[in-house]
Amino acid sequence: MKSSIVILSGGLDSSVLLLSLLTQARSVRALSINYGQRHSRELEHAALICKTLGVEHRTADLSALRPLLAGSSQTDDTVAVPHGHYAEETMKVTVVPNRNMLMLSVATAWAISTKTDSVAYGAHAGDHAQYPDCREEFCQPLAEAMANADWHRVALERPFLAISKADIVRLGNLLPGGPEIMAESYSCYEGGEYHCGRCGTCVERAQAFAEAGVVDRTLYKDYDYWKTVTAPAPATAA
Amino acid sequence: MKSSIVILSGGLDSSVLLLSLLTQARSVRALSINYGQRHSRELEHAALICKTLGVEHRTADLSALRPLLAGSSQTDDTVAVPHGHYAEETMKVTVVPNRNMLMLSVATAWAISTKTDSVAYGAHAGDHAQYPDCREEFCQPLAEAMANADWHRVALERPFLAISKADIVRLGNLLPGGPEIMAESYSCYEGGEYHCGRCGTCVERAQAFAEAGVVDRTLYKDYDYWKTVTAPAPATAA
Repeated sequence: MKSSIVILSGGLDSSVLLLSLLTQARSVRALSINYGQRHSRELEHAALICKTLGVEHRTADLSALRPLLAGSSQTDDTVAVPHGHYAEETMKVTVVPNRNMLMLSVATAWAISTKTDSVAYGAHAGDHAQYPDCREEFCQPLAEAMANADWHRVALERPFLAISKADIVRLGNLLPGGPEIMAESYSCYEGGEYHCGRCGTCVERAQAFAEAGVVDRTLYKDYDYWKTVTAPAPATAA
Repeated sequence: MKSSIVILSGGLDSSVLLLSLLTQARSVRALSINYGQRHSRELEHAALICKTLGVEHRTADLSALRPLLAGSSQTDDTVAVPHGHYAEETMKVTVVPNRNMLMLSVATAWAISTKTDSVAYGAHAGDHAQYPDCREEFCQPLAEAMANADWHRVALERPFLAISKADIVRLGNLLPGGPEIMAESYSCYEGGEYHCGRCGTCVERAQAFAEAGVVDRTLYKDYDYWKTVTAPAPATAA
């Protein structure tokens, strides 16, 4: 039986990814990374989702790296979380330096030591503009490096790379238990009990449900904010 | 001025690498990784070498990953350190799963957050047989992933990739202060006050000095052991 490790942030994308892999005939475990983010609510939701789904879950603690990851609103308390659309220039401060390579390195280490076939993560088409390490220029060579890091080859799976977040919501809605798992997932950068509705990931989340035409069970403090926010025009060459 | 981060284990190769980069006109900082190895003596020597050279030094603590890195004699106390030649089949237990990708990921994160031009590490030709993540099939794609992990591009430098450990000793011997820095470096897997002389890295170290014709100032408990050990014949195709 094929075996996989899913990188599970506790957010919407990785939660749907985990659920979708469970519907295939394979052995699945989940890995969350504490990289010293501003809050740990996402990680609590990751643990809850794994409990609901009966999936083995580990959290790797990289919080000791925090002093090396300055300048991001997610790991540096002196940088405020911006409000607005995910793809705006102001959102660059939410980028954690080299987050994906760090997470994939740890997952690959665990995969090698447990002879697991693949590592899966939930990067999607909408991530490309903001997160350089969600682009194919990053993923493709990293996949090759992962395959060659040990005599035991580990494959990188990124099934959402060509689809949008709205597509992920549509997929999640079709999977058994999907609506419940999506409601259990947590995306907000602020880390409150309810989603704030105003940060980049809240706006992206609410818009994805609306675009998909799927009921959004998320509890937002300011639900209507996303309607006032539009994506910035793509940058044009000078 | 060009800026670089050197991955410094405290062993011979990375110590000579650090020294050689300092002789070039560039700004250099050093990063050591505590990945929960059997002992921390190498890290103490890394700190000492940086103090001697007046180089900024950070240690990233990844020891929380230890439960994910089972099966290596370096991170799993239930696995004994083997004696003999570095390139023997028995040495495979000393491989820490995905060690280089983990170290390079952390160094790249720090390089991105400090807008540093490059990350340098001391993989050399003799590492290839034993450590899959010292081969070009790993390094080349990883270098490409590192360059594309952020809008700030980080280069991977591996100046020793085509030379032997004996060549590194020869180089170290020619650099100002090199003999002293090599004597301050520490390689032994056992972690005692003196080098054991019998583990794979001790044998490799002693043989490299002998091959280079350079005085070995290292204090070994069993200095003559390396003379009794020869490299295994290369595996031939069936």
